[in-house]
Amino acid sequence: MRPSGRKNDELRPISLETGLSMYAEGSCRILFGRTDIICSASVEKRVPFFRRNTGLGWLTAEYGMLPRATSTRNKREAKAGIQTGRTQEIQRLIGRSLRACLDMAALGERQIIVDCDVLQADGGTRCAAISGGWVALRLAVDKLISAGDIFTDPVMGNIAAVSCGIFAGQPILDLEFAEDSEAAVDANFVMTGGGKLVEVQCTAESGTYSRDELDTLLGLAESGTAAIVAAQNSALNA
Amino acid sequence: MRPSGRKNDELRPISLETGLSMYAEGSCRILFGRTDIICSASVEKRVPFFRRNTGLGWLTAEYGMLPRATSTRNKREAKAGIQTGRTQEIQRLIGRSLRACLDMAALGERQIIVDCDVLQADGGTRCAAISGGWVALRLAVDKLISAGDIFTDPVMGNIAAVSCGIFAGQPILDLEFAEDSEAAVDANFVMTGGGKLVEVQCTAESGTYSRDELDTLLGLAESGTAAIVAAQNSALNA
Amino acid sequence: MRPSGRKNDELRPISLETGLSMYAEGSCRILFGRTDIICSASVEKRVPFFRRNTGLGWLTAEYGMLPRATSTRNKREAKAGIQTGRTQEIQRLIGRSLRACLDMAALGERQIIVDCDVLQADGGTRCAAISGGWVALRLAVDKLISAGDIFTDPVMGNIAAVSCGIFAGQPILDLEFAEDSEAAVDANFVMTGGGKLVEVQCTAESGTYSRDELDTLLGLAESGTAAIVAAQNSALNA
Amino acid sequence: MRPSGRKNDELRPISLETGLSMYAEGSCRILFGRTDIICSASVEKRVPFFRRNTGLGWLTAEYGMLPRATSTRNKREAKAGIQTGRTQEIQRLIGRSLRACLDMAALGERQIIVDCDVLQADGGTRCAAISGGWVALRLAVDKLISAGDIFTDPVMGNIAAVSCGIFAGQPILDLEFAEDSEAAVDANFVMTGGGKLVEVQCTAESGTYSRDELDTLLGLAESGTAAIVAAQNSALNA
Amino acid sequence: MRPSGRKNDELRPISLETGLSMYAEGSCRILFGRTDIICSASVEKRVPFFRRNTGLGWLTAEYGMLPRATSTRNKREAKAGIQTGRTQEIQRLIGRSLRACLDMAALGERQIIVDCDVLQADGGTRCAAISGGWVALRLAVDKLISAGDIFTDPVMGNIAAVSCGIFAGQPILDLEFAEDSEAAVDANFVMTGGGKLVEVQCTAESGTYSRDELDTLLGLAESGTAAIVAAQNSALNA
Amino acid sequence: MRPSGRKNDELRPISLETGLSMYAEGSCRILFGRTDIICSASVEKRVPFFRRNTGLGWLTAEYGMLPRATSTRNKREAKAGIQTGRTQEIQRLIGRSLRACLDMAALGERQIIVDCDVLQADGGTRCAAISGGWVALRLAVDKLISAGDIFTDPVMGNIAAVSCGIFAGQPILDLEFAEDSEAAVDANFVMTGGGKLVEVQCTAESGTYSRDELDTLLGLAESGTAAIVAAQNSALNA
Repeated sequence: MRPSGRKNDELRPISLETGLSMYAEGSCRILFGRTDIICSASVEKRVPFFRRNTGLGWLTAEYGMLPRATSTRNKREAKAGIQTGRTQEIQRLIGRSLRACLDMAALGERQIIVDCDVLQADGGTRCAAISGGWVALRLAVDKLISAGDIFTDPVMGNIAAVSCGIFAGQPILDLEFAEDSEAAVDANFVMTGGGKLVEVQCTAESGTYSRDELDTLLGLAESGTAAIVAAQNSALNA
Repeated sequence: MRPSGRKNDELRPISLETGLSMYAEGSCRILFGRTDIICSASVEKRVPFFRRNTGLGWLTAEYGMLPRATSTRNKREAKAGIQTGRTQEIQRLIGRSLRACLDMAALGERQIIVDCDVLQADGGTRCAAISGGWVALRLAVDKLISAGDIFTDPVMGNIAAVSCGIFAGQPILDLEFAEDSEAAVDANFVMTGGGKLVEVQCTAESGTYSRDELDTLLGLAESGTAAIVAAQNSALNA
Repeated sequence: MRPSGRKNDELRPISLETGLSMYAEGSCRILFGRTDIICSASVEKRVPFFRRNTGLGWLTAEYGMLPRATSTRNKREAKAGIQTGRTQEIQRLIGRSLRACLDMAALGERQIIVDCDVLQADGGTRCAAISGGWVALRLAVDKLISAGDIFTDPVMGNIAAVSCGIFAGQPILDLEFAEDSEAAVDANFVMTGGGKLVEVQCTAESGTYSRDELDTLLGLAESGTAAIVAAQNSALNA
Repeated sequence: MRPSGRKNDELRPISLETGLSMYAEGSCRILFGRTDIICSASVEKRVPFFRRNTGLGWLTAEYGMLPRATSTRNKREAKAGIQTGRTQEIQRLIGRSLRACLDMAALGERQIIVDCDVLQADGGTRCAAISGGWVALRLAVDKLISAGDIFTDPVMGNIAAVSCGIFAGQPILDLEFAEDSEAAVDANFVMTGGGKLVEVQCTAESGTYSRDELDTLLGLAESGTAAIVAAQNSALNA
Repeated sequence: MRPSGRKNDELRPISLETGLSMYAEGSCRILFGRTDIICSASVEKRVPFFRRNTGLGWLTAEYGMLPRATSTRNKREAKAGIQTGRTQEIQRLIGRSLRACLDMAALGERQIIVDCDVLQADGGTRCAAISGGWVALRLAVDKLISAGDIFTDPVMGNIAAVSCGIFAGQPILDLEFAEDSEAAVDANFVMTGGGKLVEVQCTAESGTYSRDELDTLLGLAESGTAAIVAAQNSALNA
Repeated sequence: MRPSGRKNDELRPISLETGLSMYAEGSCRILFGRTDIICSASVEKRVPFFRRNTGLGWLTAEYGMLPRATSTRNKREAKAGIQTGRTQEIQRLIGRSLRACLDMAALGERQIIVDCDVLQADGGTRCAAISGGWVALRLAVDKLISAGDIFTDPVMGNIAAVSCGIFAGQPILDLEFAEDSEAAVDANFVMTGGGKLVEVQCTAESGTYSRDELDTLLGLAESGTAAIVAAQNSALNA
C-alpha cells in the first residue's frame, strides 16, 4: 500500500491555472497534488552569444524553490550566492526538454526564458515544472503569433513529464515526497504528446534494477504523461 | 487625478490569506492591489552567533522577487550569485521592523526567519512584506504558545507599513508602480497597532521637501497603517 | 548628561581639509570629532549603461572602512569578497543624497564617483561622508568649470547631513559611538543649504517614537546642518 | 559508416594503468581511445556533516578538465571562480554511480574522494571517469584492507559505464566526439559487473526516440560494460 | 638625470608618524615622498587553525589601496568582490617579511594582523608598507610587554625595505612612479637592522640583467635600508 | 647529506616529452624527478583589452594542481571558487618570465596562453612549469611560423628556471619537497639561454642570509639552468 493510498498507476490530482501573471508573456500555476509551482515564460529579443546572427531562436529555463517550500527551511540560494548542483541539473533538464518541441528557425532570433519557482515541494517538482513550463511556453508563443511576430507555429507538440519509481518492491507512478524518499529506484520520463521519449533518467538509489523493471516503469510513464498532456490541453482550451 | 483613479488617501484593496503552507510554522499571502507576496515564518532552534547562550531570541528576514514579478524580467539573484543592494536594504528593513514588536527574552533562545517572496510587484512591496510578514510571525508564535514551548506572548502588538509620496504635487497614500515611478518624494512608514512610529524613510526623488510636507505624509500613513492593522486582525480572526 | 559632556544641541568640532590628494579631481578630509573620513571625487567620461547617449550625467558613491577604523578590528571587505548590507545601504544613501543637488543635464554625459573611506569611526560616519563628499564634489565640478569643460554650474546648492537620536530620554544632536550604541531612536537627516529636506531616516532601536519626538529631532537637524553648511563654505573659501 | 570506422557495437581500445601516483591511496589512468583521464581515490577520516557519528562512510567525486583538454581552449573553472552546471552534473553522476557498489557500514566512518581529471577529451569522459574511478576506488579499499583498517570488503562488485547513441539513424556503442556532436540520441549507461542497471540517462538531442530504440541501446550497453569490466579486472590482476 | 632630480643613491624624504589611531594596538603613518600609507597592528587572541594549541603566535598582513590612491581611479576591490593577484602577492610579502623578525614562541599563542592601507601611491608602496608595518608591530608588542602580557620581547630587530631599479641605464635607489614605470629592472629588498637579507625580488621588466648589476642594486639597498632603520628608531624614540 | 642523496650541485633527472596533446598548438610534459607537469600553449586571436589595436601580442599563463598532486589532498580550487594567493603568484611569475623572451611586435596581435597543470608535486613546480612552458611556447610559435602566420621569429631565446636553497647549512641546487620544507633559504632563479637573469626571488624561511650566500646560490643557478636549457634543446631536436 502506498503512503498516499493511491493505486500503483494512479496520478495525483493535477491542477493547471493559466494567465495569472499581469506581466509574463505566458504563465501557469501547476499542482501535482501538493507540489505547487509557478511557471512563467518571458520572450526577449536578445539571444545567447552562440545564436547571434543565425536567425535561430533559443529557450532556456531557470528553477528555484522558495526557502520554505520544504519541510525544513532550505537556504536561500540568492543569499548563499550560488545555485546548488541539484538546481543546475534540474534547470538544464527543463530547458533541454522544452527545446525538444521547438522549431528554432520558426521561432526566429528571440529567446524564451521559462522560470519555474516552487512554492511548495512534495515530490516530482522537476516533472511538474516541465509540464507546467510547457503550458507557459505555449501561451507565450500564442501571443507572438497573435501579434503577428511569427507566422509558423514553432511549437511542434506537447511535452510532459512524470516520475516513476520502485517503492516497497512495487513499480509506482508519480511519487510524492514520502514515497520518493524511500524508493529503491527513482526515474523521470519526459515524453511528447505523441508518446515518444525525449529523456529518460533512471537511478538506483539503493541496489540496482533490471531491464525488465525499467520497461515496466516506461509503461507507467506512458499512461501518466498521456493524462498530463490531456490536462495541459484542457487548461489551454478552458 | 491618480493613475489608479483612487482618492489621495485611499488604500488599494488588501487581501490577506493565512495558512497556505503545509510546512511553515506561520504563513500568509498578502495583496496590496496587484502587489502579491508570500510570507512565511520558520522557527529554528539555532540562533546567530551573537545570541548564543544569552537566553534571548532573534528574528531575521529575507526578501526576494520571482524573476518575472516585474514588467520586464529581472535577473534571478541566485544565478547572478549576489543579492542586490536594494534587496539587502529591504530585508534589513523588514527584519528591523518586525523585531520592534518582539520581546526577545519571552521568545527565548530561538530564531524566527521571515521569508517574503514577491510573486508580482506593483509598488509597495517592502510595506506589504512587513505587513504580511507580521501575520506570518503572529501565527508562528501562536503555534509555539499552543505547543507549550513558550508561556509569555513575545509579540507586543501589530506592526504594519505603508508607502506615501508626493505625486503631481499631491501627497498620496499607498503608491502603485505607475505612481511610484513618477513621484517627487517617496516615503515608507512602519507603525505599531497603537499608532507609534517604528521607522520613517522619506526620500526626495527629484527636488526636495519641507517639514510640513513630511507632516502631511505622516498623517496619511497613520490612517493607512490603522486600516492595515484592522485587516491583519480580521485575517487572524477569520 | 551626554557621555561626551556636550549640550543636547551641540555638534562635535568639525574639521574640513581640502585638496590633500595629488590625483583626485576633488578631495577633502572631514572630521566630526574623532570620526575621520577621506572623501575624493573622480570624474570619468564613461557613464553607466542607462545614461549612455542621453546627454545626462550621473553620480555614484562608494563607502568603505579601514579594518581598524573601529574598536575591534572589522574584516576587510575586499578579502571577504563582499560588501556588507550596511556598506551597500550607506553608499546608496550617499549617492542619492549628493545627486539631489546635481543638475544632470548641466553636468553632461560624465560620471562623478565619490569615494568615502573611513580612517576612524566614532559615530555618524554616513553623515560625515555625505557632508565631506559634497565638498569633494564641489571642488571637482569647479575644476571642470575652470577647464572650460562645462559652462553652467550643475551644483545647485550645499548638501549636509547630521545624525540625531533619543538618548537617555533626551533628543540629542550628532551622536558619537558611545551615544549611538545606547540610543533608543537613531535618525539621519540630509538637508540642503536652504534648509529643505532631502532624506529622513528615523529608526526605533528599542521601543517606538511619536510624531512629536520626530519633530523635535527635525528641529535639531535643521540647526546642525546649517552649521555644517557654514563649515563647508568656510573650507571652500579658505 | 562511423567516422571512426568502427563497427556499431565496437568499443574504442581501452587502456588502464594503475598505481601511477606516489601519493594517492588508489590511482589509475584510463583511456577510451583518445579520451584520457587521471583518476585518484583519497581516503579521509573526516566525513560530511550528515554522516558524523553514524558509523557509516561516504564517497564523493569531483571532475575537472584541463583547459586544453578540448579542441578550443576552455576557461579554467578555478579562475572563473565557478564550476559549470555540466561539471557539477557529471561529478554528481560519478559519485552516485560509485556509491552504488559500496557498503557504507563496512567502509566505516571515513570518506573516499574520487578525483577525475580529464587530460584529453574525445567523447565519453563521464563514462571513462566512472570506469576508471572504480579502479582507483578498488585500489584504495584494498590498501585499507591490507593495513587492517577494515575487515569486511565494502566494495560489492564492479561498476562500469559506457555511452551509446543513435548516429546517422544507427544505434552505436561508445561515441567519440565526432559522433557525439552529431548524434540524434545520446545515452549513458552505468552497470554492475553482474549486468544490472545503476543509472540510465538517455536524451534526445534532436527529435525523439521510441521504447524499442532505447531497448536496442540497452543491449549495446550490456555488451560494452561487460568488456570494460573485463578490462578493469585485468588491470587489477596485472 | 632622474625625473625626481634626486641622486642615484638618494632616498625620498621619509616621514613616520606614530600613535594616530585611537583604537589600534600599534599604528603609524609612513610617507616615502608622496607615497602615503596608514599601517596598524591589531592583536587578537584567536590564531589560525594551524597554530592552535601550539603555544606559538602568528603574524599576518593585509594590504589595500583607496580607489583614488592612483592617477586614474582603480576599482574598489571590496566591490569587485576579489583581491587582485597583485594585492595578494604584496600582502603575502609583507607578512613573510615581518614574520622574519618575530620569535613566535616568545609572542605566545596570539595573532598580530598588520593592515597597510595606501592613501596615495607614488611608487614603492610595498616597501613603505613593510617599513611602516614594522613600526606598528613594534608599538603593539611594546603595549603587550607594558601590560605584562608577555615577558620576553619577541621582536628580534628592525625590518625595513626599499626598492631599487635600473632606469635609463643607471642603477637607482627608491623609485617613484615616474621612474618605476620606465625602469628596465625593478627590485625590492627586505633587510634587517643588522644588514642581513630577508627577501630579494628582482625582475627584468624589459630585457635582462647580469649578476654584476644585481650586486650593484644590493649595495644601494644596503645603504637605503640603513637610513630607513634609523628613521624607524627616531620615530619610536620621539 | 641531502635527503635525496644528490650532490649539492646536482639536478634531478629531467624528462621532457613533446607533442602529447592532439589539440594544443604546443604541448610538453616535464618531469624534474617526481615533479610532473603538463604544459600546453594555446594561440588565440583575441588579445586583452590593453593590447587591442596596438599590433602587439601578449602571453599569459595559468597554473593549477590536481587535487591529489600532493601528499595530502588539497582542495580543488574550481570548487572552492577561488585561486589561492600562492597560485596567483606562481602564474604571474610564469607569465612574466616567458614574456621576457618574446618580441611582442613580431608576435603580432595574438595571445598565447600557457597552461601548466601539476600532476604530481615534489618541489620546484614553478621552475619546472617555466622550463616546460617555454618548450610549449616554442612549439606553438613554430607552428605559427610554419603556417605562414608570422614571418619573424618572436622567441628571442630560451627561458629556464631552477630553485636553489640553503639546507642544513649547505647551498644546494634543485630542491625536492623533503628539502624544500626544511630549507632556511628558498630561492627561484629564472635565466635566459645566454646566462642572463630574468627574475630572482630569494626568501629567508627562517633567519636571514648574506650577500655572499646569495652569490653562491646564483652560481648554482647558472649551472642548473644551463643544463635545463640543454635538455629543452634536445627535446625540441628529438
